[in-house]
Amino acid sequence: MLDPDRLFPIEDKTRSIARSLYEGVRSLPIISPHGHTDPSWFAKNERFPNPAQLFITPDHYVFRMLCSQGVKLEDVGVPRIDGGWTETNGRKIWRIFAKHAYLFRATPSRMWLGHAFEDVFGWTEWLNEENADRAYDHIAECLEKPEFLPRALYERFNIEALATTESPLDDLKWHRAIKESGWKGRVVTAYRPDPVVDPHYKGFIENIEKFGEIAGVDATNWEGYLEAHRIRRAYFKDFGATSSDHGHLTARTENLPQEEAAALFQKALKGECSAEEADAFRGHMLTEMARMSLEDGLVLQIHPGSNRNHSNPVFETFGLDKGFDIPTRTDYVHALKPLLDAVGMERDLKIILFTLDETSYARELAPLAGVYPALRLGPAWWFHDSPEGMRRFREMTTETAGFYNTVGFNDDTRAFCSIPARHDVARRVDCAFLATLVATGRLGEDEATEVAADLTYRLVKQAYQL
Amino acid sequence: MLDPDRLFPIEDKTRSIARSLYEGVRSLPIISPHGHTDPSWFAKNERFPNPAQLFITPDHYVFRMLCSQGVKLEDVGVPRIDGGWTETNGRKIWRIFAKHAYLFRATPSRMWLGHAFEDVFGWTEWLNEENADRAYDHIAECLEKPEFLPRALYERFNIEALATTESPLDDLKWHRAIKESGWKGRVVTAYRPDPVVDPHYKGFIENIEKFGEIAGVDATNWEGYLEAHRIRRAYFKDFGATSSDHGHLTARTENLPQEEAAALFQKALKGECSAEEADAFRGHMLTEMARMSLEDGLVLQIHPGSNRNHSNPVFETFGLDKGFDIPTRTDYVHALKPLLDAVGMERDLKIILFTLDETSYARELAPLAGVYPALRLGPAWWFHDSPEGMRRFREMTTETAGFYNTVGFNDDTRAFCSIPARHDVARRVDCAFLATLVATGRLGEDEATEVAADLTYRLVKQAYQL
Amino acid sequence: MLDPDRLFPIEDKTRSIARSLYEGVRSLPIISPHGHTDPSWFAKNERFPNPAQLFITPDHYVFRMLCSQGVKLEDVGVPRIDGGWTETNGRKIWRIFAKHAYLFRATPSRMWLGHAFEDVFGWTEWLNEENADRAYDHIAECLEKPEFLPRALYERFNIEALATTESPLDDLKWHRAIKESGWKGRVVTAYRPDPVVDPHYKGFIENIEKFGEIAGVDATNWEGYLEAHRIRRAYFKDFGATSSDHGHLTARTENLPQEEAAALFQKALKGECSAEEADAFRGHMLTEMARMSLEDGLVLQIHPGSNRNHSNPVFETFGLDKGFDIPTRTDYVHALKPLLDAVGMERDLKIILFTLDETSYARELAPLAGVYPALRLGPAWWFHDSPEGMRRFREMTTETAGFYNTVGFNDDTRAFCSIPARHDVARRVDCAFLATLVATGRLGEDEATEVAADLTYRLVKQAYQL
Repeated sequence: MLDPDRLFPIEDKTRSIARSLYEGVRSLPIISPHGHTDPSWFAKNERFPNPAQLFITPDHYVFRMLCSQGVKLEDVGVPRIDGGWTETNGRKIWRIFAKHAYLFRATPSRMWLGHAFEDVFGWTEWLNEENADRAYDHIAECLEKPEFLPRALYERFNIEALATTESPLDDLKWHRAIKESGWKGRVVTAYRPDPVVDPHYKGFIENIEKFGEIAGVDATNWEGYLEAHRIRRAYFKDFGATSSDHGHLTARTENLPQEEAAALFQKALKGECSAEEADAFRGHMLTEMARMSLEDGLVLQIHPGSNRNHSNPVFETFGLDKGFDIPTRTDYVHALKPLLDAVGMERDLKIILFTLDETSYARELAPLAGVYPALRLGPAWWFHDSPEGMRRFREMTTETAGFYNTVGFNDDTRAFCSIPARHDVARRVDCAFLATLVATGRLGEDEATEVAADLTYRLVKQAYQL
Repeated sequence: MLDPDRLFPIEDKTRSIARSLYEGVRSLPIISPHGHTDPSWFAKNERFPNPAQLFITPDHYVFRMLCSQGVKLEDVGVPRIDGGWTETNGRKIWRIFAKHAYLFRATPSRMWLGHAFEDVFGWTEWLNEENADRAYDHIAECLEKPEFLPRALYERFNIEALATTESPLDDLKWHRAIKESGWKGRVVTAYRPDPVVDPHYKGFIENIEKFGEIAGVDATNWEGYLEAHRIRRAYFKDFGATSSDHGHLTARTENLPQEEAAALFQKALKGECSAEEADAFRGHMLTEMARMSLEDGLVLQIHPGSNRNHSNPVFETFGLDKGFDIPTRTDYVHALKPLLDAVGMERDLKIILFTLDETSYARELAPLAGVYPALRLGPAWWFHDSPEGMRRFREMTTETAGFYNTVGFNDDTRAFCSIPARHDVARRVDCAFLATLVATGRLGEDEATEVAADLTYRLVKQAYQL
Repeated sequence: MLDPDRLFPIEDKTRSIARSLYEGVRSLPIISPHGHTDPSWFAKNERFPNPAQLFITPDHYVFRMLCSQGVKLEDVGVPRIDGGWTETNGRKIWRIFAKHAYLFRATPSRMWLGHAFEDVFGWTEWLNEENADRAYDHIAECLEKPEFLPRALYERFNIEALATTESPLDDLKWHRAIKESGWKGRVVTAYRPDPVVDPHYKGFIENIEKFGEIAGVDATNWEGYLEAHRIRRAYFKDFGATSSDHGHLTARTENLPQEEAAALFQKALKGECSAEEADAFRGHMLTEMARMSLEDGLVLQIHPGSNRNHSNPVFETFGLDKGFDIPTRTDYVHALKPLLDAVGMERDLKIILFTLDETSYARELAPLAGVYPALRLGPAWWFHDSPEGMRRFREMTTETAGFYNTVGFNDDTRAFCSIPARHDVARRVDCAFLATLVATGRLGEDEATEVAADLTYRLVKQAYQL
C-alpha cells in the first residue's frame, strides 16, 4: 500500500531532492506537543480491545464519512446518550467499515489507516468486503501480543514527548500513575480550561465550585478565581505541562478593566451572561491566561473557529464530538487586537494560533505572525491536516511569515496508531515543498536540509519548550 | 487548435497515466443533469439562424468580455428592453467578436469555442480580423445541413440525457412536443420555482394567481399553495424531471412553524414583505421543497450566492442575464442549519449544493457534505467551471468529502454546441487530478480508473436518478 | 545566489518554453507606474549614506520580520517619535540583520535583497554573521562611486518611467528640481489626496486650510473644495502625473446627492463626523475623483483593505508605516456598486483595483473587471507581491478577466534597489504561468510570446498612459 516516494514532487530531479531531504528527517524522534490521546493507556498499559475499537468507533474522521453515505452511527458502535442499542460486535463494525472503505480514496484517513495497517500491523492491503475478516483476525491477533501494548507502541513509534489535554478539574491521576510507574516515556499534560472559562459551558457554575475545591481557594470571587488558575497551572506544570489550550468559537479577545471582568464573572456565576457577555468573558480570559503565561512560561494555544455540534438531532442522540463540528469564517485581525495590544510585543511569551479558515493564512495570520514577537503559527489543523492542506499552509504563510514563525507539526489526535503516519505525512509534505523551492532557485539545498530538520524537530521543541 | 494532451499533467509519466485514464472515459455518454438549453430546439428541430446567433449573442460569457473592453452590447446584438436599435447583422457581430477574440486567451470560453469550431464544425483556426469572414461562411454553410440540426447534434454529441430548466408556470409544451414526436432523445425538464417562491420576484402576485390556475387549486392560501407545488412537481415528473433547482441570493434556510410561514405568505401576496421577510420566506420554502422531495423523490439543487444584475444602468437598458451577475461571499454553516436540522440526516433525500464562493469548499462545504447523509456537492459552477476552477474544487473538497459525496459534472449551459467541450474539459481535469494522485502514491491506478468512470458517468446518474 | 532559471517551471520542456518567453521580455524597459521612492533622490542625486540605511532601516518588510523574532525596532535604527535612543551605527544594524538573515529564507525579501546584492553591487553571498562586515564594507565602498548615485542607478536599471506618490499639499519642489535639472530620467508624481479626503486623517482641518491656500481658492465650502482638487490635479499633471491613488480601509464607495456630500464636508470641517460619516465621505469622494478623471484623464487607483497601525504601543512609540499594517477581509461587490452605477460603463475612464484579500480575486474582482469597461485589475499587491502570490493572482483572475483587463506590474516600493529585482520576479512568474498554459495546450507559443510582452510593457503603458 505504501509507495516509498509518496507525496514527493513528480519530476525526477525535484523528487530526488525531496527524497534526500526526507532521508535526513525520517528517523528523527516524534515530538507530539498537542493531542488527545488517553493518559490511562500509558498508565495502565492494557491491550487495546479489538480492531474496531482501536480504529473505527473512536475516530470521528472515519465514522463521519460513513455517516455521510448513509451508515447509521449506531451501526458502527457510537454510543447513544440514552443508552439505547448500539453495535458492540467489533467484527460487525469492521465489516461495515471494510465495505465502505472505498469512500476514503484520496482522503488523509486512508493514508493514516493504510500506514498504520502496514507499518504497525504488517497488513498490506486496503480493505474491502472480501478481505475484511482476514484483516480483522490479523490485527486482533497482533493486539494480543506484548509488543502492541500502549507503552511498547509509544517506544516503537520513537516518540520523545507526547502531550495530552486535560481540564483543570482533572486530578491528573493517570499522569501521576505514569510518573510513579518508573516508565521512561514522556507523557505530559496540557491545561485546557474551557469548562471553567466559558460561562456557557455545560455545568459552568458547578465547575467553578469544584475548581475552587480542587485548587484550595474560594474561586467564586474574581481574585480567587484567577488564583485558582495559577494554582492549577502550577499543578499541571508538575506533570510536565508546557502549554495551555483554548478552543473558542471565535478568536475574540478582550482586555477589560479588572472591575468589569470581575462583574462579568459574577454574572456568569449566576448564569446570567448573555451570549455577547459570555463571549466577552471568554475573550478577556485569553488575555488573563496570556498574563499568567508571562509569569509561569506556559505556551498559549488558541484553536478557534469550529461551530461544534452542528446537527441538533445528532447532538441530542449522541452528544459531543461526533464529526459534526464544522469550520466557520474566522476573523483574527480585529479579534486579536486587544490581546496583542496588551501582550503582543512581549518577547518572552509564545501564543500559537491555529485556524480552520484557510483564507486567513495569507491575509491575516502570516502578516500578524510575521511582525508580533509573541505570535507563532500552529500547523495546518484538523480538516487541513492533510497533504493538500499542509501544502496550502506552506504556500500561503511562508512568504510573509517565513519558516521561523511556525512551530513544526502537531498531530492533535486521539488515534494513537495514526501518530507515526501523521508525522510522516507532515515530513514528506514539508520536504516536497522545500524541494520545490530548491528546484526553482528559491532556496539552497544546504539551507533546505537545515530547514527540514528545523520544521521536524527543532522548532517544535523550542516553541513548546519540550 | 486542439492539443490532444491538453489539460493533462506536464510530466511524462503522469501525463501518460492521465491519458490512459482519459481513454477509459472519453467516449462515455454525456449526462447533462442541469442546464438551460431551449427545449423548443429539440421540439422544432429547426436550423440555427447564423454563427453569431449561435455563438455570440446568447452567450453572456462572450459578450461580457467584449463589454469589459469597451464593445457596446448593442453592437453585438444584445436586445434592448425599449426596443431601440441593436445590431442584427450576424456577420457584423461576428467581425467584432473576431477582432476581439484575443481577449479570450486562456479563458474557458476560448477552449469551449475552439473545441466547438474544430470538433463540431471542422474549423481549425482561432479567430482574428483576417479570417473572420471565412470562418463565418464556413460555419454558416454547415448550419444549412441536416447534420447540424439540433437533434442530429444531440445524437452526435452522444448525449444520453439532457435536462432543461423551467418555471412552474411553464406549460411544458415543448417537452410535450418532444415526447409526442417519437424522437428517442431524452430531454427532461427540471422544476425551478423562483417566480412563485420569491416574494420579490417580478410579478410575484400575478405569478401565484397563474400558479393556482395552472395547478387547478386555489394557491392564495398556504395549504393550497403547497398543494399547487405538489401538483406541478408531479406534472414536471411526467416530463422526466428528477430535480428541482433554487437560485437564491444567499444559502439561507428556515424551518418556520406552519402558521408563521402561512402568515408570511399572506404578507407576500399583499406585496408587504420586507427584504428580511422575503428572505425568510425563500429560506423556509427550501425546507418545504426538501420535505416534498422526501415524498416525490426529486433531487433538490441549491445555487446560491450570485448578486444578480449588479449594474443598474445595464439592467434598466437590457434586463436580466447580461453578464452582470457577480458572486458574493456566501455562508453555508449557519445558513443551512435549519434545513439540515429538519432533514439533513435523511438517507432518502439528496440536496446538491453549489457555490460561487470557493473559500467555502474546504472550510464549509466539504465538512458538511462529508458528514450529512442528505448532502452532496455539485461541481465547480459558472465562473469556476474552468480548468483552474475545477482543479481547485477537487483539491479543496476531496480530502474531506471524498469523491463519493460529489455528483459528477453539470454543464449548466445554454450554449448547446459547448456541451461536448465542457464535459471534455471536466473529464480531462478529473483525469489529470487522479493521475497526480496516482503519481504521488495517494491512489492506485486501478482505483483511479474506477473513480474516473464514477466521476464521469456513474455518480451523476445515481445522484440525479437519470 | 541567483539561479538563472529561478521561478521557472520544473519540468524540462516547460522550463525551456518559459526561458524562451523570458528572453523576449527580460530586457524590456521598466515602467514603474506606482511607487513610493523619494523624488529628492533624483533631484539631489546624492549618494546613499550606508548599506543599513539603504537596505534595512527604511524597509518595513525587513524590520517587521526581525521584530517578529524579538529584535527591537530601536536596534535596527527605526526612529522613535519621542526622539529617544535608536541605533545610528550602520554597521551595528547591518550585523543584527546578517545574524537574522536566515529568517528570510523563501521570502520575497530574500529574493529582492539577494538580487540587489548580486546584480547591483556584485556581492554574491547571502548574509550571515561571518560575512556581515565584509559585505557591509563592499557595499559601502560601492556607494562612494558615481555609478551608484540615484540617477546612475535609474539609468542602469533601464527605467523608462517612474512614478512617485505625493499629497496634494506637497509643493512638488523635488519634481520641479528634476524637471529643471535637464536630466532625462522620467520621474513623475501621482495624486494621493488621503490627507484632504479622509475626515479622520491627522490634521484634516488644517490640511483643508492649507489645501485652499496652495490651490488659491476657498476650500472650506464644497464647491471650492472640489475646485481645489481640480486645480491641484492639473498642477500634478504638469509634473507628469497620470494617476491618482486612494488608500482607504475599505472599498466603500458612495454617490451622494451634492447637498448631502456638502453637508458631510461641513461636518468634517468641524471635526464632527462619526466613523460611519467619515467612511461615507471618503466613499463619496472616490466617485467625485472618478468624475474628475473623466474630465482630466487621470487613472484612478484604489488600494483598500489594510488595517493600518494594528499595534497601539508600536504606533504610539514609532508612528506610521512600521510593518504593523494587516490586511482584512474586503468586500468589493457591494462596496463598489455606487461608483460603478455612476461611472462603471464609461469607456474613457480607467479605475484600477488592488486587493490584499486574495479570496476576492476569483469571486469578485475578476467577475467585476471581466464586465465593467471602466475597471482594470492591479497586480498582486504588498504581501502578495511574491512568487506564490503572483501565481495565485494569475490562476485566479485569468479565466474570468483574461489578461487584457489587467495592467502589468507595479513595484509599489520605496526600496529603490529592489525595483529591478521585483520587475524581474514578475516577468519570471508571468512567463512561468504562460509556459504552463502552453505546455497544457491552453495557449499557443506565439500567443504566449505576445502576451508576455503585453504583461511586461504594453499593458502598463496603456493603462497608465505612460
